[in-house]
Amino acid sequence: MKKKLVLSCALTGAATNRQQCPYIPYTPQELGEEAKRAEDAGASIVHIHAREDNGQPSWRLEVFEQIHEEVRKRCPNIIINYSTGAIGIPKEDRIRHVSAIKPDMAAFNMGSMNYAIYSKKAKKFYWNTVFANPFDEMMFYVQKMNEAGTIPEMECFDTGHIRNAEPLRDMGLIPDNAVYSLVMGVMGGIPATTENLMHQIKQVPEGNHWQVIGISRKQWQLAAVAITMGGSFRVGLEDNFYLPNGEMAKSNGECVEAGVTLAHMLGAEIASIEETRQMLNIPLTDGVSA
Amino acid sequence: MKKKLVLSCALTGAATNRQQCPYIPYTPQELGEEAKRAEDAGASIVHIHAREDNGQPSWRLEVFEQIHEEVRKRCPNIIINYSTGAIGIPKEDRIRHVSAIKPDMAAFNMGSMNYAIYSKKAKKFYWNTVFANPFDEMMFYVQKMNEAGTIPEMECFDTGHIRNAEPLRDMGLIPDNAVYSLVMGVMGGIPATTENLMHQIKQVPEGNHWQVIGISRKQWQLAAVAITMGGSFRVGLEDNFYLPNGEMAKSNGECVEAGVTLAHMLGAEIASIEETRQMLNIPLTDGVSA
Amino acid sequence: MKKKLVLSCALTGAATNRQQCPYIPYTPQELGEEAKRAEDAGASIVHIHAREDNGQPSWRLEVFEQIHEEVRKRCPNIIINYSTGAIGIPKEDRIRHVSAIKPDMAAFNMGSMNYAIYSKKAKKFYWNTVFANPFDEMMFYVQKMNEAGTIPEMECFDTGHIRNAEPLRDMGLIPDNAVYSLVMGVMGGIPATTENLMHQIKQVPEGNHWQVIGISRKQWQLAAVAITMGGSFRVGLEDNFYLPNGEMAKSNGECVEAGVTLAHMLGAEIASIEETRQMLNIPLTDGVSA
Amino acid sequence: MKKKLVLSCALTGAATNRQQCPYIPYTPQELGEEAKRAEDAGASIVHIHAREDNGQPSWRLEVFEQIHEEVRKRCPNIIINYSTGAIGIPKEDRIRHVSAIKPDMAAFNMGSMNYAIYSKKAKKFYWNTVFANPFDEMMFYVQKMNEAGTIPEMECFDTGHIRNAEPLRDMGLIPDNAVYSLVMGVMGGIPATTENLMHQIKQVPEGNHWQVIGISRKQWQLAAVAITMGGSFRVGLEDNFYLPNGEMAKSNGECVEAGVTLAHMLGAEIASIEETRQMLNIPLTDGVSA
Repeated sequence: MKKKLVLSCALTGAATNRQQCPYIPYTPQELGEEAKRAEDAGASIVHIHAREDNGQPSWRLEVFEQIHEEVRKRCPNIIINYSTGAIGIPKEDRIRHVSAIKPDMAAFNMGSMNYAIYSKKAKKFYWNTVFANPFDEMMFYVQKMNEAGTIPEMECFDTGHIRNAEPLRDMGLIPDNAVYSLVMGVMGGIPATTENLMHQIKQVPEGNHWQVIGISRKQWQLAAVAITMGGSFRVGLEDNFYLPNGEMAKSNGECVEAGVTLAHMLGAEIASIEETRQMLNIPLTDGVSA
Repeated sequence: MKKKLVLSCALTGAATNRQQCPYIPYTPQELGEEAKRAEDAGASIVHIHAREDNGQPSWRLEVFEQIHEEVRKRCPNIIINYSTGAIGIPKEDRIRHVSAIKPDMAAFNMGSMNYAIYSKKAKKFYWNTVFANPFDEMMFYVQKMNEAGTIPEMECFDTGHIRNAEPLRDMGLIPDNAVYSLVMGVMGGIPATTENLMHQIKQVPEGNHWQVIGISRKQWQLAAVAITMGGSFRVGLEDNFYLPNGEMAKSNGECVEAGVTLAHMLGAEIASIEETRQMLNIPLTDGVSA
Repeated sequence: MKKKLVLSCALTGAATNRQQCPYIPYTPQELGEEAKRAEDAGASIVHIHAREDNGQPSWRLEVFEQIHEEVRKRCPNIIINYSTGAIGIPKEDRIRHVSAIKPDMAAFNMGSMNYAIYSKKAKKFYWNTVFANPFDEMMFYVQKMNEAGTIPEMECFDTGHIRNAEPLRDMGLIPDNAVYSLVMGVMGGIPATTENLMHQIKQVPEGNHWQVIGISRKQWQLAAVAITMGGSFRVGLEDNFYLPNGEMAKSNGECVEAGVTLAHMLGAEIASIEETRQMLNIPLTDGVSA
Repeated sequence: MKKKLVLSCALTGAATNRQQCPYIPYTPQELGEEAKRAEDAGASIVHIHAREDNGQPSWRLEVFEQIHEEVRKRCPNIIINYSTGAIGIPKEDRIRHVSAIKPDMAAFNMGSMNYAIYSKKAKKFYWNTVFANPFDEMMFYVQKMNEAGTIPEMECFDTGHIRNAEPLRDMGLIPDNAVYSLVMGVMGGIPATTENLMHQIKQVPEGNHWQVIGISRKQWQLAAVAITMGGSFRVGLEDNFYLPNGEMAKSNGECVEAGVTLAHMLGAEIASIEETRQMLNIPLTDGVSA
């Protein structure tokens, strides 16, 4: 049977804000509602960053707990995937919610890189920092996930990052159902081209589940290529505000809907939440009713 | 300015028939009507094989002349592109219509190969022949096209076929606006995979216009990849009866429409007939009113 | 244990002659002597075309029998691989020696193509023909090889040729130890570039033995790339008269010696005849003493 | 005329030591002698890290000045290329020698990454750090080089690093004759495979000089692939102690000699110092006698 495509939706991110896109969810309730819209449109995984009510990134456990409750209330079965990524936050703070909530999945970053935003027009960097993810921190996060029974999503921003999984795998830290995310289009990481995506796909060890995460408008083109390669992809307001027709999405649901349309145009079938849980071997253990 | 995408439509082919798809046009009038549907939906090039009224392939000049009249009557500006491809027909017969009608474009094949249809179920070949296109025939066709002021479309069914243009180019036989068609998915030629398409695209000499011709249902996936690479593609009942949703197309217009939708989903703009004529440097010289 | 590299040597070919290179062997005795030189230098397979004493290609069984005797007399264990390739010779004549002698291996061609020699200086083709190898002939050859217990070497001159093995495999005609030869650099087939070799290697189904056959001086560069990819390669006066230092080789032994030197420079080990027989699962059954 | 191959030699590095390889030069005089051996064997560029006499990395200007004198005394024309790479050293200290000595070239790192050594046997990291090279430091180094008239060598450890040159180029900081170094095989960066090297080569903007720097024994294989692609490569005790035959090199001269032999085996010609200066447009301005 042909492998079905798993749609993930990244609801909010940490760096986006409502000046850029007024539909970004901030509060636990908003995140819950957006998760539901994503689920209704066809997503089986939601990737979530926590925020304070004013939109600032949050690492407070209470906020994560409220988010979890608001999402589970509306989406009892969806796969919940929390970020652990941050710059300048102690590693203990970045993993506490995973240990406490024991979610289905959590993402971590597979290497260090520059992380920048450059303007050709202004001829300067608007944002320019080192996104440091040394191996010992990577080991720390994945160990905590293993203890929590949380599946790791490995965010790979460049070719070396994919290989960085090897020593961790060799130490027995990476479960077989860990997911490779090929993140493309961040200045400092691998550029978002079809050639680069094809190259990254070839680096993923045979038999592993992978998805492409295309940042900004190139997202749809990268998603299309991923579909032709039998892979999965992520959409959502964290990565790209715009629908294929160039209009700003009014919700994460609209992003997912566009992803479903594209997948269907290219002959792919979308996995239901249940099918995704089976495919990735993620039993439902954290449901609110449990 | 971003290069626009040129949509070609192959209206009928030579091997398809109405048992397979009842919407295949046979007569000159049907071809004229289908050309109009293709144009209305967004195609700027129509690729045409002539047929007798019973559907048999035809190389009679009168038939081509009637086709030309029926198409030009309805589509005074569309780029008309005739096939010269056949197995077992003398080369003089395969080019006569080009010399007589002097159409905008004509296609010829860039090398020899096996041409077969294999059934995994029946474990046998249903069709199995050598598609012989030796260099001296290639030279003959392109010389006749040059004499007629007809732009050659070079149909490349494998990697070596793309390079086969080099000696012809070196002898001054290939005009700069000749088009490379990357045909994929014929048993005997290069298989229809994303990897193979990417490889073929890299073989096309810098600055040349190219399109992908995907045979059968892989067409839509290959078209998507071509779009992400800034290229063009061909649709139409010659290559694929099925729309992305799996239903049989009821006209070439529906095929073109689906191509336009896909292109728009991936951020490409479609060139009008006028824009395509400019891009490929093909002035309108054979209009019926001229 | 690291896979060792198998060196093949193509002793004479069919199109080469002594005006081009005075060291080309013609007679059975000369072929026997050259086989011995190749073996002494490190080759474990010799690929042989038969010739009349005046150098003309020969398909006479007596000639093949004399060659076999002359080679086996000097090289009782070497893997003997006969060509079946020709243009304009009936297929029964091209396989008779295989059925009669039941050699270790025999080569056949995996598809049709143009086969040409073009001179940029003279701006014309010196040689220009269709190398027709339809599927039914391919089936015929491989069936005869299977009956003889002869391992097929599948000569693939383009990307589609590699895939052409699939229907034959599906019909159960290709044994698991059949060898893929990636022939590169014939005008009409895939050009001899590093990119093309890398692409061809990726087409070979996992787990199959493959070698590169580089025609003319690009041979050494292609061999180097093959070595880095864990593959094997062929040398010999059929493919290339010149040593890496630009001098004409004075024997097939010198060609093999250069191949060994290159392999060692790049960290590869050369398989002995015995190791190659084990690796390719070719028991010695046709030894003269048997 | 065919482009010649430029051989660079990295004489010593910063992390190597005499326990590992007793032939590593430490003192200015030893570096001068090793530079001469490299030049005599065919190198036209020497890449140099400064060290204290006990082998510790040094950033003292006096040491660089002594090195410069010792090298120029023996090699009045060779292209001298200093490292600026370090972990935990203030950026001002890493560039001071460039501003003071105004050498022909200096290398800087094109992005951040993990830099680690992992042992499969011990199942642990022996070395594990973040090699931080944020964009503002990159801009700082290249501006200082531009002020000194020193050509930048851009060390790219992953695919994103090659693209990181784009914003700097856009700001006018990168001279046209800057060199791309494709560093492969550091854990944390892109792995040392043929596929990866081919991919990296494709990322280098058309017309720029590039070389591959292969770390450890894969060096020779990567060098071979680079040669077939018309590129250059670096050898030397900083990158690899071992000759192709598996023996430890007894000098940088032996490393260069092996590089020359490999290049000649694959049909490449080695550029003389004078030819390299012309090709890279680096006039001799810092000669001791000037």
